[in-house]
Amino acid sequence: MTVPRLAIALCHYPVLDPRNQVSCSAITNLDVHDMARSATTYGVDAAYVVTPVAKQRELVEAILQHWLGGTGGDRCPDRSTAFKILHPAGSIEEVLALEAVAADGQTPTVVVTSARHDPAIVEVATLRERLQRESALILFGTARGLAPSVLERADLRLAPLEGTGSYNHLSVRAAIAIYLDRLRGR
Amino acid sequence: MTVPRLAIALCHYPVLDPRNQVSCSAITNLDVHDMARSATTYGVDAAYVVTPVAKQRELVEAILQHWLGGTGGDRCPDRSTAFKILHPAGSIEEVLALEAVAADGQTPTVVVTSARHDPAIVEVATLRERLQRESALILFGTARGLAPSVLERADLRLAPLEGTGSYNHLSVRAAIAIYLDRLRGR
Repeated sequence: MTVPRLAIALCHYPVLDPRNQVSCSAITNLDVHDMARSATTYGVDAAYVVTPVAKQRELVEAILQHWLGGTGGDRCPDRSTAFKILHPAGSIEEVLALEAVAADGQTPTVVVTSARHDPAIVEVATLRERLQRESALILFGTARGLAPSVLERADLRLAPLEGTGSYNHLSVRAAIAIYLDRLRGR
Repeated sequence: MTVPRLAIALCHYPVLDPRNQVSCSAITNLDVHDMARSATTYGVDAAYVVTPVAKQRELVEAILQHWLGGTGGDRCPDRSTAFKILHPAGSIEEVLALEAVAADGQTPTVVVTSARHDPAIVEVATLRERLQRESALILFGTARGLAPSVLERADLRLAPLEGTGSYNHLSVRAAIAIYLDRLRGR
């Protein structure tokens, strides 16, 4: 049996816009950095930036080249280490295919995150335990979150993060960091 | 007895630059947003952005005005809620004075964070328990972290966040989010 893989994907499509329409959001440079650094800290095997827009994937490639092979890597080797696990992808389907290849043909459990409450939900502690024996791909949505079509097709939906009151509007950068800490932190 | 307060401060001075010299870093717009959103989610009473540069504090004020009173607040009320607890400050000393006034003259326990290991350290679980009965101010450093002069004067130093391996280079945005989740999350 192969070692279970953990992958995450930051999805810019299909996501909801403020009017609840399915939309494509733009890549934020700092999201890419923060995801790579948090993922590397918590031993994630691959972190994908998903967008169907080729020009936006080229932007991710340019960021990667700067930090992996360019002057950024020389100046800041820690950043270079983090970006080794980061990959642009055109769709969630492409990510699933890449992860299946990396896991010898085994499709990962697809986990979605949503700030909304839902009865059919898996607790973080339960997923933490399952990650010991199964590969998973956790999808994070930008803008107002993943489109219903993605939520419906997923295997599991992670319980939303809860703070001390009713306010629950973390940035996706913060949500990724906290989920990874809860799933993998000591 | 008053309810214990929890405040955080993102410090742009005095911090270390890549050559280990004491320096002043520039404000990053997304840091301000993420700190306000994470702090509000986890019930923090006040979040300060500390810089001695007046023009940089004006930038923070401009961000605040946009989201509290301007078109940003109309478009995104959740952001407006988060920014209500955010304040620019000229120095750590000013933050301490403001917090003492807010706590009826009681000075908060000053807690610093550092990615470096140190024997004289308080575990996150211990601080979580202490926050039930004492007010605290947690200082986060930008750039390469808080200057030694700040670390030396603090009452407590929080244990560094640890992932799964030796890589430990979270963004300050991610570190704030994870610490608040560990200190206040359900």
